[in-house]
Amino acid sequence: MLEPTYQVWPLPSEEPKDYALPNSSWSEDMMDQFDKFMAMSQDGTWRRIPSHRHIKCSVPESMRQKLEENNREIQYFCRNIDMEGLGFEYAMFFNQSQKRMVCIFQPGPLLEGHPGIVHGGSVATILDNTLAWCAIFDTCGMMVTANLSVNYRSPILPGSVVLVDGKVDRIEGRKTFLCAQVQSVDGQTLHAEGTGRKATVV
Amino acid sequence: MLEPTYQVWPLPSEEPKDYALPNSSWSEDMMDQFDKFMAMSQDGTWRRIPSHRHIKCSVPESMRQKLEENNREIQYFCRNIDMEGLGFEYAMFFNQSQKRMVCIFQPGPLLEGHPGIVHGGSVATILDNTLAWCAIFDTCGMMVTANLSVNYRSPILPGSVVLVDGKVDRIEGRKTFLCAQVQSVDGQTLHAEGTGRKATVV
Repeated sequence: MLEPTYQVWPLPSEEPKDYALPNSSWSEDMMDQFDKFMAMSQDGTWRRIPSHRHIKCSVPESMRQKLEENNREIQYFCRNIDMEGLGFEYAMFFNQSQKRMVCIFQPGPLLEGHPGIVHGGSVATILDNTLAWCAIFDTCGMMVTANLSVNYRSPILPGSVVLVDGKVDRIEGRKTFLCAQVQSVDGQTLHAEGTGRKATVV
Repeated sequence: MLEPTYQVWPLPSEEPKDYALPNSSWSEDMMDQFDKFMAMSQDGTWRRIPSHRHIKCSVPESMRQKLEENNREIQYFCRNIDMEGLGFEYAMFFNQSQKRMVCIFQPGPLLEGHPGIVHGGSVATILDNTLAWCAIFDTCGMMVTANLSVNYRSPILPGSVVLVDGKVDRIEGRKTFLCAQVQSVDGQTLHAEGTGRKATVV
């Protein structure tokens, strides 16, 4: 299988930690789903996608100072909460033959909008993220998002676990069209549906 | 002017801090825009919208414990980064007669996706947030997002300042249709365009 040319680069000072592995904040539902997809990865049908926090990037000097003062480094948006279980907890699995990426997602209490409901922006973020990595792994190219459209069907509660199930619909030149559904783990509740268009960066 | 019935409730233990006021991380561009809209608010045409971090909410006991262990409280998604300048820095101004909300937005380095570029999910989030509060203040009702669609035109750099300019297009029963543009402060660069549909919660 071809490896994508795009990577998340760890900062050189640090061993890259893989955040797409279980931690103590993961609920039973989250562990059940993770174990299920790990089992399906045994024969290579599915593949777990590692996830890192740090990216290498040029920022203005003033911003670099601000980060250093706060003992922080540049962090990927979906991994920018330091404490386990409070932000985006997720693990993604890719199925090459189906051109499909499933993200097991446990949103934390810092992702709220209305009291007791995950913010629409958090849902859009995990959906965009899932589709982005699906396109990257399918085409092995670096991608940017050209369009994202989300229909919200029912609220997601912090601490619950949902499956973001995304796949490549078609590719037209530099454009990759994808779609996704966000469902409860029992498949009984459709929380959101979305489509995305990615553009290869040449 | 009618006040919206929906409020962000501060936790009782704490005086609500208003985060839509200048802090030392705000750039000159950010301050210029803020001062401009404050000046336009003198005669009541525009109105600055306060923004708080904490919301009152019921969460599972295990999650409450996790928050307490980490000395954190439940926080609104767009205000969940503790350090000034690293996450979402923004201030919103509402114009009732134009049914329009302008959000001055300075994304921090923890909102990145690709190295050096603000994550598409961060852009979707601030757009959703601007449209949500625009609908809430226009209709004085509690709203949830039913649809969000974003076309990404050009990347936004961390530390830059952009204007999210949203307005109500039309209202049909419980549905409020809105649109927004995300532009550079000089109006020369269109970063994104979006539409949203909000549903009144009855």
